[in-house]
Amino acid sequence: MVVPEAGLPAKVTIYEVGPRDGLQNEKSVVPTEVKAAFITRLVDAGLPIVEATSFVHPDWVPQLADAADLMRGLTADLGDAARQLPVLVPNQRGLDRAVELGLRHVAVFASATETFASKNLNRTLASQFEMFEPTIRQALDAGMDVRGYVSMCFGDPWEGAVPVEQVVAVGKRLLDLGVGQLSLGDTIGVATAGHVKALVAAFADAGVGCERLALHFHDTYGQALTNVHAGLQAGVTTYDASAGGLGGCPYAKSATGNLATEDLVWFLTGLGIEHGVDLEAVVAASAWMAGQLGRPSPSAVVRALADTAG
Amino acid sequence: MVVPEAGLPAKVTIYEVGPRDGLQNEKSVVPTEVKAAFITRLVDAGLPIVEATSFVHPDWVPQLADAADLMRGLTADLGDAARQLPVLVPNQRGLDRAVELGLRHVAVFASATETFASKNLNRTLASQFEMFEPTIRQALDAGMDVRGYVSMCFGDPWEGAVPVEQVVAVGKRLLDLGVGQLSLGDTIGVATAGHVKALVAAFADAGVGCERLALHFHDTYGQALTNVHAGLQAGVTTYDASAGGLGGCPYAKSATGNLATEDLVWFLTGLGIEHGVDLEAVVAASAWMAGQLGRPSPSAVVRALADTAG
Repeated sequence: MVVPEAGLPAKVTIYEVGPRDGLQNEKSVVPTEVKAAFITRLVDAGLPIVEATSFVHPDWVPQLADAADLMRGLTADLGDAARQLPVLVPNQRGLDRAVELGLRHVAVFASATETFASKNLNRTLASQFEMFEPTIRQALDAGMDVRGYVSMCFGDPWEGAVPVEQVVAVGKRLLDLGVGQLSLGDTIGVATAGHVKALVAAFADAGVGCERLALHFHDTYGQALTNVHAGLQAGVTTYDASAGGLGGCPYAKSATGNLATEDLVWFLTGLGIEHGVDLEAVVAASAWMAGQLGRPSPSAVVRALADTAG
Repeated sequence: MVVPEAGLPAKVTIYEVGPRDGLQNEKSVVPTEVKAAFITRLVDAGLPIVEATSFVHPDWVPQLADAADLMRGLTADLGDAARQLPVLVPNQRGLDRAVELGLRHVAVFASATETFASKNLNRTLASQFEMFEPTIRQALDAGMDVRGYVSMCFGDPWEGAVPVEQVVAVGKRLLDLGVGQLSLGDTIGVATAGHVKALVAAFADAGVGCERLALHFHDTYGQALTNVHAGLQAGVTTYDASAGGLGGCPYAKSATGNLATEDLVWFLTGLGIEHGVDLEAVVAASAWMAGQLGRPSPSAVVRALADTAG
């Protein structure tokens, strides 16, 4: 039954990260044609944005070593629509490859904490921006737009709770460099609803409105969807989600990872919030992908509905 | 990190239903001493109310055929504290057994829909009250208080969405019969946040305040905790939950069932809402129970923390 809640946005954009953020943590390499079929199914299901892959160095993430092949194959199949699929570019070399392929949307990956900047980027919190600056400038010069992921925005496994001011400072630096949208990540899943509202409010106080923000929640402690609820009440209208709940953070103890796209779609549908996604088609894609990976989806909605989806 | 959200209650009562609602759906019979140990651990973990069992006819629910033995054993171990543990009494015969044992708190189980009243109670929606009336009156005469569960308050597998007016009518009848608190159950897990607020508002319009209401959510579609969030925003301060997420509805396709107590505790703690529960102790109890049942807990928090809990 559709029962709206007063004060929530009328429309939400779901930013699908399953093919990139979900699959990058899979140990056994997924064939390129399976990835392409998964992405195509998600696009066909009405997901308005599907992040396809990452042009990371193959030594770091062997799962994504086929990034260029994947994008070439998708372009052959989907034409210009494939060039609209965002890709992660961790550095300038990654961006060069995206430019060669004529892609239109890229994303960079920053850290809100000193320790994660060191471990994940081999940079200090302050010096990470030196790495992003030329990449972002070159992307903008090429007419692309750039998304800025910020990880560890709520808690960090080594540093504990992360002050909202610190996250705002990192986000502002990225915006100043030309990033169009920030994706604020709860990488280890420790955010709760009040913290989400406090972070969005801190950005607003710093002059960064909701239209520049996306929220990216992990379900490690079962909190992802309540955090979306808090984000909606704070006015944020873009949410990252992963079809079937694929993915996870290697630093968290649990196997659970990204908010499942299906659970988010169910929630938005119940509230009468427009999202444009065909739930059954996403469930079918995720159930199919779960079969490819050989294990059940962690999404509650996929488990409840997979029998009835094709 | 604790970050409160403006306007939420300062304190919440968790009504633990794992030993009764969780275990009643287990196919293989759990030994009475295991049930008693589970209940004792939950009480020791600070859960203020732990529903222990149901005095249902053993032919209906063989799992709970040991109800009287269980309560006698608990009374020997815990003394008067065991008499404070609520039990479900589906009819007058069940109540007679609770009276004999000197118990203080009982609960009856009603349906908000015609079809479920027929299938679960073998009554019509209207005639179910004839069954409850003498039971409730006798319980009140014995100085007990009576909780009234209302199932299928949001959706019903046969009837679809359930009108809020219908739920309010059933709840009002139970209150008029002398029930102290209503537990409004989303038996098949289809509620979303706006629907929760609409139902609480409909009760308020009918003169039934939040202090008479508890909310009982199932996580079949991953919505349980957002529904609690909506309930808190509507002012409700009592929530049913099941340690380790034990239980499920036999009519839903998914194995997922009750909101996990641990996920609720994590959520409340993050919001700075007082609950009085020792999270690690509940996690340890649920991990131990999962070992007894031979399968992992569906609770995200238990899966994330069970390694570190004793």
